[in-house]
Amino acid sequence: MRLAERIDHANAEVARRLTASRARWVDVRPLRDVVLDLGAYELTHSGPPLLWREMGGAQRGAVIAAVLFEGWASTPSEARGMLDRAEVTLRPNHHAGGVGASTGVGSPTTPVCVLEERGVSDRQGAQSWALLELPGANPGAHDAESLAGRRRWRDGFTPALAKALSAAGGVDVDAVVARALHMGDEMVHRTGAATALTVAALAPTLARAGLGGAELAAGLDALLEGEGFFGALALAAAKLACDGVRSVDDSTVVTAMSRNGARCGVRLAGTGDKWFTATAPTVKGLLLDGYDEDDAGRDLGDSAIAETAGLGAFVLAGAPALHARLGTRSADGLRVTRDMGEVTVARHPRYTLPALEFAGAPVGIDARRVVDTGILPVIGAAIVHREPGRGAIGAGLARVPMGCFTAAIEQFAEDRGIR
Amino acid sequence: MRLAERIDHANAEVARRLTASRARWVDVRPLRDVVLDLGAYELTHSGPPLLWREMGGAQRGAVIAAVLFEGWASTPSEARGMLDRAEVTLRPNHHAGGVGASTGVGSPTTPVCVLEERGVSDRQGAQSWALLELPGANPGAHDAESLAGRRRWRDGFTPALAKALSAAGGVDVDAVVARALHMGDEMVHRTGAATALTVAALAPTLARAGLGGAELAAGLDALLEGEGFFGALALAAAKLACDGVRSVDDSTVVTAMSRNGARCGVRLAGTGDKWFTATAPTVKGLLLDGYDEDDAGRDLGDSAIAETAGLGAFVLAGAPALHARLGTRSADGLRVTRDMGEVTVARHPRYTLPALEFAGAPVGIDARRVVDTGILPVIGAAIVHREPGRGAIGAGLARVPMGCFTAAIEQFAEDRGIR
Repeated sequence: MRLAERIDHANAEVARRLTASRARWVDVRPLRDVVLDLGAYELTHSGPPLLWREMGGAQRGAVIAAVLFEGWASTPSEARGMLDRAEVTLRPNHHAGGVGASTGVGSPTTPVCVLEERGVSDRQGAQSWALLELPGANPGAHDAESLAGRRRWRDGFTPALAKALSAAGGVDVDAVVARALHMGDEMVHRTGAATALTVAALAPTLARAGLGGAELAAGLDALLEGEGFFGALALAAAKLACDGVRSVDDSTVVTAMSRNGARCGVRLAGTGDKWFTATAPTVKGLLLDGYDEDDAGRDLGDSAIAETAGLGAFVLAGAPALHARLGTRSADGLRVTRDMGEVTVARHPRYTLPALEFAGAPVGIDARRVVDTGILPVIGAAIVHREPGRGAIGAGLARVPMGCFTAAIEQFAEDRGIR
Repeated sequence: MRLAERIDHANAEVARRLTASRARWVDVRPLRDVVLDLGAYELTHSGPPLLWREMGGAQRGAVIAAVLFEGWASTPSEARGMLDRAEVTLRPNHHAGGVGASTGVGSPTTPVCVLEERGVSDRQGAQSWALLELPGANPGAHDAESLAGRRRWRDGFTPALAKALSAAGGVDVDAVVARALHMGDEMVHRTGAATALTVAALAPTLARAGLGGAELAAGLDALLEGEGFFGALALAAAKLACDGVRSVDDSTVVTAMSRNGARCGVRLAGTGDKWFTATAPTVKGLLLDGYDEDDAGRDLGDSAIAETAGLGAFVLAGAPALHARLGTRSADGLRVTRDMGEVTVARHPRYTLPALEFAGAPVGIDARRVVDTGILPVIGAAIVHREPGRGAIGAGLARVPMGCFTAAIEQFAEDRGIR
């Protein structure tokens, strides 16, 4: 079989597996209970690997806050000292089986949502996770009140949530995604419908099991007010789907895209776990009042795993209300989804878009097509302040740089004795 | 002031009041506790007034089922006898301050959702109601199992729901409508997002107040499975808004549209409570397998109060997923909403449509413009079998007949000494 044919076959297999994935949310636990080899003084972060001194301001701020959150240091300068001396080690979430939005910094006691594969036949029970942040919290804030709020979230609410989830027998994330795509969510920056569906699905269980308490009530209020809660589940579901194709020989389909505030990285199924990186893009969009483009750091977050799995900006056609936050118009959303159809290998059979007459979400980015057409994958992104601890200052769209794809395709070709 | 000017002024006042209305869901009670002058053997029904012998099959079936539900008769033929002898009296929901979808038959113990005005300054505390049907139940079914199911709903679930609602301090229906319009609901035939938002909003209260029990749990499950639950709240909210303009002198704006399976009726603000009727239309749409157009009865239900208040088919542009049920396409939805802008006097300031760049819902049908342009108001409708007890067999769109509007405008002119 010629290579081009082998690639087509491999990509079809990747598409089949990506779209066969069905995630179920089964647990909420501290990160260290899920990543069993997590070091006692290890933190995780979004994006491809990078060193402490390479980190942009936003991620640096979140790392310092995490050191304080864990009580490893009692002042920011103590925390910085530990990091400078490499007494705290750093690892990408992606290298620990999970993902985190934005700075995406996880620490041993950070609560994570655990999802389990129920679709792909040879991966039953495989797991992924995503950081479950206190909605609306700025991960870089390390004042006493912010840290106390996050600790209440961790110690009070998340164990109660885990109990409710267990009583409910988990939540079918795949089904919620399919429904919420008909309700204006794109699953990353707009998840209000999916969040409501998920909390509503727990309500009968609370009534049936007699579960309650002030902590659970306050936590559910926070989930509903923030609206962004389901983003964690969507990202973890996307990670689960993509991990099922992390290594499929001869496939040019992308299995991860992620940004760490300095570099943006891409992985292909046919090149395994190697990252192909380029300078992280800047995000074009709407800034909050009082900020300008110079305040923005480079793009960061693992959220582009959503686009890798056909969600996020790839289904922007289904989320017209989001344009008010991104500074775009509904026609832009239709165009982005159509354009992404040009560089993907499949349409999702269950994730459909009513505004495009129920066309499936474009899924499975073919790096060859990106290079051939010059159409760069679009990702939705928060705009995060470049200084530590300042948090999000807007939202918009970014393009994954061409450099990631050309480097990946060159390696892919070289591995196969071409050029 | 010339009449045309007086009309414009009056219509502007109607628009102001219609869009100022903000409904809050405050209670669930038996109909007889809400309609205090309801007779001991009185039933309510959808549409303008009609006699028992004039009713179409679907409504006749629901009336018989209601007589059996109340235990006034023990067999359908006994029930028919009571109705033939006028021992059971009939009144439109609209004449009792409320509304009901489809056959819309209410009996003394039927649970209704009670809504209260919180927006219009001179109507604080004014109430409306809508029948709260067991989701998915066929109102014309009167076998023992169906009646038992509806009685469990009435006696087990709805009191528990009322308690939860009271503990939550009610639900802001206006806010849910505004949010759910950004989530693909049009508020009558698609209310899955609004239903989830409402049930989710109760979840923290259940946890906080320690409310629970198997009945409440099963009822919440039924609300979520049926998805259509919020329709009752949307119709009651629309009724509340429209009742605030039931009598505004010189206004040609429509204050009610409703169908009873025989006739379709329209009221104008400037002609008060008089109905102007024409033969009820037939509904064009998608039929369930095994049915054809001859099986369909004429259009019925109070649901067109939604369109009267700028919801339902008037915001079809925001509900593309509904087209799969109606047999239409997303372009049709955009067109219907745009067309309705041609015959309405205002755009709703809080109910906006992202797919039309956040244009407001077209609200306040001007009967003059309907007559002048020939553009008939579109309403969404279930297609109901013409025989008693067979229930819904599809869904689609209908047009309110021109005869209603010409008759109304003629009366309006005559009242003002014109012609």
